[in-house]
Amino acid sequence: MYDEIIDKNNPNSALKVKEGVLKPDVVNKDYLLHIKKRKQLSVEEYVKGILEGNRTILSQAITLVESSLFEHQRIAQQVIEKCLPYSGKSIRVGITGVPGVGKSSVIEVLGKQLTAEKHKVAVLAIDPSSERSKGSILGDKTRMESLASDENAFIRPSPSAGSLGGVARKTREIIILCEAAGFDVVIIETVGVGQSEVVAHSMVDFFLLLQLANAGDELQGIKRGIMEMADAIAINKAEGKEKEKSLMAANNYRNALHLFPMMESNWSPIVFTCSSYSKEGIDTIWKTVLDYVTLTKKNGYFYKKRNQQNLRILNETINSFLTESFYDSKIVKDNIEQAKEDILENKVSAYVVAQNLIDKYFNSLK
Amino acid sequence: MYDEIIDKNNPNSALKVKEGVLKPDVVNKDYLLHIKKRKQLSVEEYVKGILEGNRTILSQAITLVESSLFEHQRIAQQVIEKCLPYSGKSIRVGITGVPGVGKSSVIEVLGKQLTAEKHKVAVLAIDPSSERSKGSILGDKTRMESLASDENAFIRPSPSAGSLGGVARKTREIIILCEAAGFDVVIIETVGVGQSEVVAHSMVDFFLLLQLANAGDELQGIKRGIMEMADAIAINKAEGKEKEKSLMAANNYRNALHLFPMMESNWSPIVFTCSSYSKEGIDTIWKTVLDYVTLTKKNGYFYKKRNQQNLRILNETINSFLTESFYDSKIVKDNIEQAKEDILENKVSAYVVAQNLIDKYFNSLK
Repeated sequence: MYDEIIDKNNPNSALKVKEGVLKPDVVNKDYLLHIKKRKQLSVEEYVKGILEGNRTILSQAITLVESSLFEHQRIAQQVIEKCLPYSGKSIRVGITGVPGVGKSSVIEVLGKQLTAEKHKVAVLAIDPSSERSKGSILGDKTRMESLASDENAFIRPSPSAGSLGGVARKTREIIILCEAAGFDVVIIETVGVGQSEVVAHSMVDFFLLLQLANAGDELQGIKRGIMEMADAIAINKAEGKEKEKSLMAANNYRNALHLFPMMESNWSPIVFTCSSYSKEGIDTIWKTVLDYVTLTKKNGYFYKKRNQQNLRILNETINSFLTESFYDSKIVKDNIEQAKEDILENKVSAYVVAQNLIDKYFNSLK
Repeated sequence: MYDEIIDKNNPNSALKVKEGVLKPDVVNKDYLLHIKKRKQLSVEEYVKGILEGNRTILSQAITLVESSLFEHQRIAQQVIEKCLPYSGKSIRVGITGVPGVGKSSVIEVLGKQLTAEKHKVAVLAIDPSSERSKGSILGDKTRMESLASDENAFIRPSPSAGSLGGVARKTREIIILCEAAGFDVVIIETVGVGQSEVVAHSMVDFFLLLQLANAGDELQGIKRGIMEMADAIAINKAEGKEKEKSLMAANNYRNALHLFPMMESNWSPIVFTCSSYSKEGIDTIWKTVLDYVTLTKKNGYFYKKRNQQNLRILNETINSFLTESFYDSKIVKDNIEQAKEDILENKVSAYVVAQNLIDKYFNSLK
């Protein structure tokens, strides 16, 4: 008998609400972890369940991955390790765009089309802001209702780890579990603000940017540089009287992309219009992804990019360990604010300050 | 009597070749340092000379900054420290573009216009590739001949430090010395390939991208993302029968930039055509820089960006110290290749590998 975490990110929790096991208000409280006595599975049982495609066990394993309790992490890491050899076989697609662009509706229609073609689709989200999570999680329930009840789809909101690095790590680990459970399409949804889409881009094969025809104020939410990261741009809500405007917008984006230098993948980004309402153009998304995968598997970039992504995790994780150890050390905490002031007042160069702090830090480790 | 470094990056060396003191083949050998006995100035003499605008002493001080000898660095750092309070008063302009776009010719015409308006102009370069340096240094001599002989201009090729980080640091330190010597316009030229323009962008107030009307193959040399970093794009070589094409290209770029999100500076990037041959449009560069400076000083972004740049140096320098110490340690060197292989073969997750290496590394420090 071990403790099991049950939270609102876990579909099981929602189920338990229906069943009257948990009260809704307890479940809905943001990131509240509700500990309940229940038999915990062994590492082998988790792995077996995941490899058999058991969604309940997959969900429970993901909850362990998301947990910050030491004992849960210990088990989670063993499960991940054993699932690793079975991972990597899906196509990973990132979808980004500002709030209101219609990401969830597009993903729902796309997901239904894919499951109809016998694909197994996992939809994960990256959203490090808990404020926003609250919104999008409630939103997911309403907006992806039809996909959520599809037995070949698996929808999981963003892990609620505080830092973007933490969310990134957990999402990457969840991808491994989903792939081991047989999901052959993994869609990563991001909100398109801050740095979350950069993180999403670093873990997908193909990156789709959703835009609207009225590219006015709403564009300001998108970080500069995202457009140049996109393998495709879809002008969404191209329906009714917006259709003509959307076609014009697509043309403008197409002309703009021609001015960009060639991508390392040798892929020329595609621009098209779509509508989750009329469902027109949604099939173009998947056709484009397949064209991209065909090209990049042929020229080797697909595999090169995956390897680069894996090695970048290694470097970035090492960097974040090293810098955390540095900035969290007492000697640095005691000195860095004064050092910053001195730099900003042109009293001393940033290089000299850095060297001094580094010397102090390494001395403190001895 | 101390040793003085004389190298091909030092205008004095070129002079000494003319005077027969050094043989040309010795000077031209890439990065060869030729040590010659000569009286070395004191820190105070360097600082006094620089503040008086003595170009010979400025040159000698820069040579010390570029030197990797401990004794030279010791003096250089003291000189920089004493010059710091007098630095920061120039407008720093980055100019990038692929080889062949005409950077040097544009800078020469722009520089002459500025010195005619009583500005003192320093032209520095960032080019971490020694292969390329060789080319551009030879090129500079031919192409910027008229500016080089202008007593209100100071041209210095890229420091020849091996790493981009090293070049960046030395260039930032040279900017300090030039500003202390009274240069009120500092132009940083980069080759527009690799990462050098990102580094240049990180140390300037205003960033100009030069392009050609025939935006075909040559664009492939430009890194993706540079266009979104540019405060202005100038279509160069807009002369004769190319003029019409250049105006059309400018229009295309203008339309493309409209699709980009607003810059943090609140500045809307400007696109125009220019020609160092007909000299048309070169004055637009400086007018645009002044408009930008006026806007961003008014809204505070100018100062905010400078502060951010200074604090970023602190963080980046600390990061590079930390990672160098890690990757250069014996324990990491002995284990990292195997670790990378294991990751690429999906045997173990990059996070676990990172954690293991970090533990070993910190244990080895105790």
